[in-house]
Amino acid sequence: MKRTNYAGRTSEAQIGQEVVLKGWVAKRRNLGGLIFIDLRDREGIVQLVFNEEDDRAAFEVANECRNEYIIEVRGLVRARAQANPELATGKIEVEVKEANILARSKTPAFEIKDDVEAAEDLRLKYRYLDLRRPQMMKNMKLRSKVAAIVHSYYDSHDFMDVETPNLTRSTPEGARDFLVPSRLYDGHFYALPQSPQLFKQLLMAAGVDRYYQMARCFRDEDLRGDRQPEFTQIDTEMSFATAEEIQEMTEGLIKQVMKEALGVDVPTPFPRLDWQEAMDRFGSDKPDTRFGMEIHDLSDLVKDSSFKVFSGTVAAGNYVRAIAVPGGADHYSRKDITKKEEYIKRYGAKGLAWVKVTADGYNGPIAKFLTDLADPINERLGAKEGDLILFVADTFHVVCDALGYLREAIAKEMDLIAPNQWNYLWVVNWPMFEYDEGFGKWIAAHHPFTMLKEEDLHYLEEGEDPHQAHAQSYDIILNGNEIGGGSIRIHDPKVQEKVLKALGYSKEEANARFGFLLRGLENGMPPEGGLAFGFDRWVMLLAGADNIRDVIPFPKNSKGIEPMTAAPGMVDPEQLEELHLTVAAEAPADED
Amino acid sequence: MKRTNYAGRTSEAQIGQEVVLKGWVAKRRNLGGLIFIDLRDREGIVQLVFNEEDDRAAFEVANECRNEYIIEVRGLVRARAQANPELATGKIEVEVKEANILARSKTPAFEIKDDVEAAEDLRLKYRYLDLRRPQMMKNMKLRSKVAAIVHSYYDSHDFMDVETPNLTRSTPEGARDFLVPSRLYDGHFYALPQSPQLFKQLLMAAGVDRYYQMARCFRDEDLRGDRQPEFTQIDTEMSFATAEEIQEMTEGLIKQVMKEALGVDVPTPFPRLDWQEAMDRFGSDKPDTRFGMEIHDLSDLVKDSSFKVFSGTVAAGNYVRAIAVPGGADHYSRKDITKKEEYIKRYGAKGLAWVKVTADGYNGPIAKFLTDLADPINERLGAKEGDLILFVADTFHVVCDALGYLREAIAKEMDLIAPNQWNYLWVVNWPMFEYDEGFGKWIAAHHPFTMLKEEDLHYLEEGEDPHQAHAQSYDIILNGNEIGGGSIRIHDPKVQEKVLKALGYSKEEANARFGFLLRGLENGMPPEGGLAFGFDRWVMLLAGADNIRDVIPFPKNSKGIEPMTAAPGMVDPEQLEELHLTVAAEAPADED
Repeated sequence: MKRTNYAGRTSEAQIGQEVVLKGWVAKRRNLGGLIFIDLRDREGIVQLVFNEEDDRAAFEVANECRNEYIIEVRGLVRARAQANPELATGKIEVEVKEANILARSKTPAFEIKDDVEAAEDLRLKYRYLDLRRPQMMKNMKLRSKVAAIVHSYYDSHDFMDVETPNLTRSTPEGARDFLVPSRLYDGHFYALPQSPQLFKQLLMAAGVDRYYQMARCFRDEDLRGDRQPEFTQIDTEMSFATAEEIQEMTEGLIKQVMKEALGVDVPTPFPRLDWQEAMDRFGSDKPDTRFGMEIHDLSDLVKDSSFKVFSGTVAAGNYVRAIAVPGGADHYSRKDITKKEEYIKRYGAKGLAWVKVTADGYNGPIAKFLTDLADPINERLGAKEGDLILFVADTFHVVCDALGYLREAIAKEMDLIAPNQWNYLWVVNWPMFEYDEGFGKWIAAHHPFTMLKEEDLHYLEEGEDPHQAHAQSYDIILNGNEIGGGSIRIHDPKVQEKVLKALGYSKEEANARFGFLLRGLENGMPPEGGLAFGFDRWVMLLAGADNIRDVIPFPKNSKGIEPMTAAPGMVDPEQLEELHLTVAAEAPADED
Repeated sequence: MKRTNYAGRTSEAQIGQEVVLKGWVAKRRNLGGLIFIDLRDREGIVQLVFNEEDDRAAFEVANECRNEYIIEVRGLVRARAQANPELATGKIEVEVKEANILARSKTPAFEIKDDVEAAEDLRLKYRYLDLRRPQMMKNMKLRSKVAAIVHSYYDSHDFMDVETPNLTRSTPEGARDFLVPSRLYDGHFYALPQSPQLFKQLLMAAGVDRYYQMARCFRDEDLRGDRQPEFTQIDTEMSFATAEEIQEMTEGLIKQVMKEALGVDVPTPFPRLDWQEAMDRFGSDKPDTRFGMEIHDLSDLVKDSSFKVFSGTVAAGNYVRAIAVPGGADHYSRKDITKKEEYIKRYGAKGLAWVKVTADGYNGPIAKFLTDLADPINERLGAKEGDLILFVADTFHVVCDALGYLREAIAKEMDLIAPNQWNYLWVVNWPMFEYDEGFGKWIAAHHPFTMLKEEDLHYLEEGEDPHQAHAQSYDIILNGNEIGGGSIRIHDPKVQEKVLKALGYSKEEANARFGFLLRGLENGMPPEGGLAFGFDRWVMLLAGADNIRDVIPFPKNSKGIEPMTAAPGMVDPEQLEELHLTVAAEAPADED
């Protein structure tokens, strides 16, 4: 039998027609002489009816079926007596004339339904069962659809799809590389790419002009939350383009994906926020603009306050800033606020000051210090009766981090975010460098190949402070999530040298790590820039999923293990011998 | 200045218009007061004219330029006094009004031209220079174009683009795996996939129904000829499809690629040759049908021959077969033939018998034995005066290998292959197993998951010889090159167990290696099959390139080294410490 259409696409237009369907038994009810089967394929479910009296052979087949058996049926589409509004095919059913079992199935390890309760590792071990769940299949179809649009969009804009190597050289920078031992050269290793960054820049030197790739990237990082050791990046690069042109090109893609994959119109151009403005107003370099509650600086108002924490902070050159939580006075108790205060200590905040706005003025421990400032403060914050005002007084970064966190946490807790908003925006003009407290040194805010703003080039000169410079870099943000970022690159070898020096690389180190790029810059490198999208995260947001693993077909779990194949696994001793490798530590028993 | 169009696309339609172009200085001639520059970008070359008198500033810029400098120019398109028919833009030139140098370049390591003489490793070290060569850029554009068609074709046929893991489990089978040490689990390794075979089968169990992926694959094989340690596969799988349906779907893709990428119409369906027929007629499982010179069996004619080599071979149950080389009598001397005889000994042939066809009958050492057989032999071979007949008498495989080789080698030497032929064909119905002389055991001709022909299933029963069975497998051949292959897969766990047993796996071994697939088969696996294309090799043939490295942007050289980044390289000792690995052998000094 040749299938005529997907079960889930059987339609009213086919009433009276014969169809051949193939799929999985999702549900089976035997009403005595009449069996109903919900037949499932990737497009959905349709109801089959087997009538013992009319079609005994088919009925016998249906009688033998169990959940997850695979059958093929030939039958007539007919209108359903009672339509099922939950089902896309709910107005019809198929009266089966002929049926065959194509495959049997054990009782599945968990029930195939969207509100599955199985532990994630069990779902991952039987991922092929898990992916049969309608929501997972929908996620995979969305991912595939977005990928198809990416390919078609960049192809139609003259971008070349160029594949860069996955077996490449280790140039540790930021994250840890995955290594691949070479069998031919003892002690030598390939590395899996953290991104195709240097290759795509050199493709611009090659004259490719417009490059894109759905690139697999690898980072051997400590796993937490949504991180996966391998992930997919929509990677692009354009020669002779300005930052603005690259952003426009990206907006075109997003617009098309939103329209074709989700049926949503998003207006372009997206807002551009300077990094400074994003930090000032939202306390974040990936601001969520789906709600207000913006941060305001009160330093000028409180600089002479009798509350010494505030006036002292301003006197030290730091900041007093606040948000007004609408209706927060009733929503948050003193105890709740103390919990928040505890939480923001992780950002370095020393405390969380607050007042509640009442008809009779401020209320709370520090209210008495602010009595005569209440009007200007309320005015600046847009605060009104019933609001809770939260103040943080500290250095710029602590104030931003603490208030940025509070703003988002409270918006979620108080359900201030209206659904179905798609707030894309750009954060532009980042600082070129940032000080890494952990490493105790300056690092590149984006990466060391990012071009400075032209007017900031002088900061690289002798006697100036390079760390004042801003970069021609930009992140694309969706609903408070960074989904991609990019920059104009340095194409002048002299500028690149100075930037590497400002990052603390000696000439020798720079050459050892990036020599091949520096050589490229000396051989005719055009001005150019690009952008990389985190494909997995973007699809997660588009799918409305809250876990990146739900949009990756075969992800690693939070311990770096892929439970279906039980990777990583032990290997045959001969394999290690061939690589001249010994495992130094005692290997634990294989758990497979 | 904003570029108006690619230099190489400047056209006669723009005569009189102002254009802004950006690109590389490919050639520069100073005629005193007049400088001509060939400006190159990825789309081609256009001639720029700088006139000292009219536009002194631009002229000064041109005067400063050297080869491979990058410039931007604004100028007027005008007709050329003397058209250059070699150039697509040869009827026009651009009179430059304004020019800027965007980047300087050292003297390139080799000249940027198609007939470059640089050693391949130098080309690979400066790959960005090498890729500027028009032929290389054309190859990359072709590759990108074919990829775009692949994506669009499968998307339009409801295939889902699904990404499978690159960090997976080692299941050594055939080729050697590349291993990736796990930092978290001592002694455990991920493996890079040799192909997504088992994942795509399990995606069918998941109900994906139609899957495709441009999949990166990895094999740590000994490098020779066209092999690369990483390569790209157009990977497809279809549920509920017959072999014929999968072939039709594939033909549709090829037809579209040939039309849209090369402008060539190829008629479909392609010829289907049984494996047996391919071997009999062409001595090859990847026959080149662009020329005749087919092999014919003469065993029945020579079984009673007085030439004991022939009659003895037939008596032993083996074969005497021959080809007639048109015009070969003059072309090949006795010495040439002796060389060929030496060569085919590698296939196990004990000798090469031959006669030349003259007006007076056969000529040559064994002519006297064949005098009265000349007419029927000539008739069967279609041999005529001036031809050379080459005979091999041996077992089936030796005869096929030797004559198959001779047929192809001679066709090339005698230039018998007319250009611009695109002979696609299918070789179908392969044997299920083949005996590997090296390993001394039976192995899967395709892979262990290939379904047998239904009528051959009985060979798996107790007391029968499984090695008689034929498979539902198929290879797609282009001009004598295998560019892809596939099969219907086993979806019945009992059949899979029997096949693994016939391959010599114990139940424990089978479970240890393929347990996750066997579990999948027990949980509702549809009948299904698929196909994988070697993307690199196909593009190589489409590009008319004779080296696979010429269609891979950053390939490894024949020693597994990627000279641009010098991968594989030494890594920091801390990196190995984190992996708990020691390199057993003395590591040679890093050559970078």
